[in-house]
Amino acid sequence: MNERRSAVTHEIDFEPLALRARCPEDQSLLEAARQVGLDLVSICGSQGTCHRCKLQVLTGRVSPVTPSEQQSLSPQELANGYRLACQTRALGHCRINVPSESLTTLQRAQVEGLEVSVAVESPVQAYRLMLPSPLHSDPGARREVLLKGLLSQHQIACNTVDVQALQSLSEQPAPSEGQIQASVRGNEVVAFGHWPSPQLGLAIDLGTTKIAGYLLDLANGRTLASQGVSNPQAAYGEDIITRIAHAKDSPSDGIRFHELAMEAMNGVAADLCTKAKVKPEDIVEAVVVGNTAMHHLVLRLPLEQLLRPPFTPTIKEALDIKARDLGLRVAPGAYVHFLPNVAGFVGADHVAMLLATGVWQSKRVIIALDIGTNTEVSLVSNGEIASVSCASGPAFEGSHIKCGMKAAPGAIERLCLLDNRVEYQTIGGGLPTGICGSGIIDAVSQLYLAGVLDAAGRMHDHPLVRGTNGQREFVLVSEEQRGGHPAITITQHDVREVQLAKGAIRTGIQMLLQSKDIAEQSIEQVVIAGAFGSYLDLSSAVTIGMLPPLPLDRFRQVGNAAGMGAKMALISISKRLEAQTLSRRIQYIELASAPGFMQTFAKATSIGFGI
Amino acid sequence: MNERRSAVTHEIDFEPLALRARCPEDQSLLEAARQVGLDLVSICGSQGTCHRCKLQVLTGRVSPVTPSEQQSLSPQELANGYRLACQTRALGHCRINVPSESLTTLQRAQVEGLEVSVAVESPVQAYRLMLPSPLHSDPGARREVLLKGLLSQHQIACNTVDVQALQSLSEQPAPSEGQIQASVRGNEVVAFGHWPSPQLGLAIDLGTTKIAGYLLDLANGRTLASQGVSNPQAAYGEDIITRIAHAKDSPSDGIRFHELAMEAMNGVAADLCTKAKVKPEDIVEAVVVGNTAMHHLVLRLPLEQLLRPPFTPTIKEALDIKARDLGLRVAPGAYVHFLPNVAGFVGADHVAMLLATGVWQSKRVIIALDIGTNTEVSLVSNGEIASVSCASGPAFEGSHIKCGMKAAPGAIERLCLLDNRVEYQTIGGGLPTGICGSGIIDAVSQLYLAGVLDAAGRMHDHPLVRGTNGQREFVLVSEEQRGGHPAITITQHDVREVQLAKGAIRTGIQMLLQSKDIAEQSIEQVVIAGAFGSYLDLSSAVTIGMLPPLPLDRFRQVGNAAGMGAKMALISISKRLEAQTLSRRIQYIELASAPGFMQTFAKATSIGFGI
Repeated sequence: MNERRSAVTHEIDFEPLALRARCPEDQSLLEAARQVGLDLVSICGSQGTCHRCKLQVLTGRVSPVTPSEQQSLSPQELANGYRLACQTRALGHCRINVPSESLTTLQRAQVEGLEVSVAVESPVQAYRLMLPSPLHSDPGARREVLLKGLLSQHQIACNTVDVQALQSLSEQPAPSEGQIQASVRGNEVVAFGHWPSPQLGLAIDLGTTKIAGYLLDLANGRTLASQGVSNPQAAYGEDIITRIAHAKDSPSDGIRFHELAMEAMNGVAADLCTKAKVKPEDIVEAVVVGNTAMHHLVLRLPLEQLLRPPFTPTIKEALDIKARDLGLRVAPGAYVHFLPNVAGFVGADHVAMLLATGVWQSKRVIIALDIGTNTEVSLVSNGEIASVSCASGPAFEGSHIKCGMKAAPGAIERLCLLDNRVEYQTIGGGLPTGICGSGIIDAVSQLYLAGVLDAAGRMHDHPLVRGTNGQREFVLVSEEQRGGHPAITITQHDVREVQLAKGAIRTGIQMLLQSKDIAEQSIEQVVIAGAFGSYLDLSSAVTIGMLPPLPLDRFRQVGNAAGMGAKMALISISKRLEAQTLSRRIQYIELASAPGFMQTFAKATSIGFGI
Repeated sequence: MNERRSAVTHEIDFEPLALRARCPEDQSLLEAARQVGLDLVSICGSQGTCHRCKLQVLTGRVSPVTPSEQQSLSPQELANGYRLACQTRALGHCRINVPSESLTTLQRAQVEGLEVSVAVESPVQAYRLMLPSPLHSDPGARREVLLKGLLSQHQIACNTVDVQALQSLSEQPAPSEGQIQASVRGNEVVAFGHWPSPQLGLAIDLGTTKIAGYLLDLANGRTLASQGVSNPQAAYGEDIITRIAHAKDSPSDGIRFHELAMEAMNGVAADLCTKAKVKPEDIVEAVVVGNTAMHHLVLRLPLEQLLRPPFTPTIKEALDIKARDLGLRVAPGAYVHFLPNVAGFVGADHVAMLLATGVWQSKRVIIALDIGTNTEVSLVSNGEIASVSCASGPAFEGSHIKCGMKAAPGAIERLCLLDNRVEYQTIGGGLPTGICGSGIIDAVSQLYLAGVLDAAGRMHDHPLVRGTNGQREFVLVSEEQRGGHPAITITQHDVREVQLAKGAIRTGIQMLLQSKDIAEQSIEQVVIAGAFGSYLDLSSAVTIGMLPPLPLDRFRQVGNAAGMGAKMALISISKRLEAQTLSRRIQYIELASAPGFMQTFAKATSIGFGI
């Protein structure tokens, strides 16, 4: 379908980072990657000789294998789709897996034409300590000797050694080996180890439906491995409100939610370590970001106030706690840093997104949003930041939609209506089994443009519409086309769900503009974060009135910026301070009690609103 | 037997505090208690009208019940031996139980004629916080509101709230109740509770064989309850060296020892709370003292260095850790303070003893010792403190002695040899079943004075001696006297054990004197701590050469001073600093490598050494 629209540029999805590039056919994947801030290892200057920019083509057509690739890649690698990024061009929409070893350092997010790059200032530093000879008659108490050594050998004044780090000394080399590694955080030794041991950090984006983990080398900020898993809490309620209501009413449910999240996080940490061939005990620091509800659930904080106005969190400020108090299995004395929350429904994940994109410091007028079951929207203008949370619901994740499904192979992710024919593209390219968020938005947009839907969302007659009144549905793929399987359709009810979801998001944007008296057309940039936001077709989103009617070049899809913000905070204490500063500067606007909310929402649900 | 020696003074043992008074027959038990620093509640000035100085007579003859007691005590109390201390006089050796409710404040130890009294300066302070009205539109994040309240209402600047204290907020009164209690330690809130909740402290003396616990009110320093239990680790090795060797070689044994100690400590804490009708969650601070090996076992610290010269601990300095990191079930965010150690075999319990008795600051020449399986001895002179540890072994606890037993009912605790007849006194006054430490010392002393033993410890002929050569034994209670049960005897081997044990202690004293070039007769005071040391007959101990030949009025038996030191440190941050200061000032002398050790030890094993 992409080929139809443009013969010369293609969309390239880089996974697992959820970054999408739009790239001319004559550019290499290496150039496409750089365009979205993905910094791949490349030493030879695209000569195909260093063989470091290895990628895996998951789906889509690409240029033929070059002699240089024939030479550097094994037949098995070639069979599995491995290619050199500098030697390969996309010939259509491609999905590309970026192996972590091909990334140089922290990915850089290109925002406002600037690269946000992060200097490594790890909160944990490793020091090599030379130990006194065991032949010395009285070497002194081990703890005191080590603290004195830090002072005399490194001018580091620590006054505390974590008790579990002390306990681990039995497993450490005997003093006869003459040296030991001390990991120091502030004025505390959090871990001991053999010298030299890696100093690793774990960044976690704890989402309502998905948990993403990143393993970083704290010495150089390099990402060693990344991994995403489903949040197992979802089995007990997709909706975060349902979960916190359960957890509040039943202490055992509260414990269960905490345990499920911890099992998943420990699983991610273990898997990341296996991938990177390191040990979880070498993880000496972690950062967790999530929405306020996930933050409170995993920390087992009181939830009552999140369930009633004014939906105030128990904690807004950043929090450092021992990993063991959370139940995270890493180095004995390691800490977990939780980024600050803004409000009950604007959490640390949004702060991380603002941190990663750097938009909060911009002098321009910017809307930044992270679309999910709850969509957080911030307006940056005149050096101020105002934020709202919109209850956009799970429609864009495929829930509450008759044939809806998650963005998984078989999902219709893109479609258009040509005459009375539906052309579609599925994830993975195989037969369709349902429709995911981006496909649903395309469908509503196309049906509206074709006059099948009116602005109020009513479904009118069309050869592909069947049923009557409230039971009407538009057939995307018929039973016949599916060889007897049930048809894939968009129902009148589905359209209503989309109207509510997109109306909520648009209301958030409008209320923010209204509160600052800023005209829609003054928005200089719209930054869209999150996986769904990155795969979203912008023109469809504008057509249905989910996003404001602005030239498409004012929109920027930045992928999982919350995870990137978590990584930045992991390797940089300056970024942690910045997160604290920015979160304190945010003016939170409670949407439901803002003047004119209901009127705006009523208008914003109409399809094509504002165009 | 006491009556025989003196018609006018009697020994009175106050339990569970292990304090012994020697009291003229015309003095009341209230006066006797005050003589040993036991401050009983008495409001009426001994008129028998306030009925507050209630005690329980366990054994021994006392003066008849007075009309005032008839009036104030129930028939059941009278039947159980309850009396008013101001109305009762001892008519013989008595054992008295002091109910915790009869104690005013911290017991005071009389040392050097001075009372060591402690001003309460609790490390944890309770503050009442008035909360903003729940009607306020946005009360702010709970944590931040509470911290601001501490600052604005009490001028207390805290920057940390323990995460488990935050978690406990769900169980706390709703803000609508308008007030909450915050327990603050340094710059951290360690607990929240209803206002007003008690602020309790737990002091633990973690001994090799016995664990003593004390529950105190941190607001006024008053002891609410006390309790002693056996150390369950003893089942896996009476000897501390055996335990640490096992724990070092087998990590699972190490964990087991830690768990056993923690189960016992948690059991003591729970029992103390039941007695005092309070909740363990109200314990907001704990202090633990023990010898260095127990300290390292319960903290699961590396043990290798404790098993080989120079026997250096992993930690000497004081240590504060979260109670939960130890596994102590008290308030969520409470800390445990461990007093400092001096050396591998001079631990925090000895520091606590020096702290409680105050001798370390004396200008006089003082020997202070705590007799146990290991006996720690300190010499205070010219403002210096020198300490040694002596491997005195378990003989005085009744181990390795043929008919030996612990100081429990049925144990012969005192005896004398009159002509060819043995007169004895048992604990509880019942039939004898064995002999405990103080009885063994009396026996060796009496046999030596009667010429049955010579200075070398050889047993000579006597009508009550039977057997030949190495198999000889002196019959204290014959089979006939025991109605066919095996005789209770002192064997040649028992005498050898006593010689080694007392020789070790005396060697410690002599080596200290020698190191400072101080003559024995210059010792102005000998302070003897510990339960065994308090029940010991001083003249017997001097006769056998365990203690130096000094006038008996230079000796002072102070009971469980280590436990008292733990209590002082619990309620007073000044006392914690003092413990740190004194422990740093101690000059530790490694006995085995001190010049002349073997020669001194060889001499010190002879019975009657020095007299």
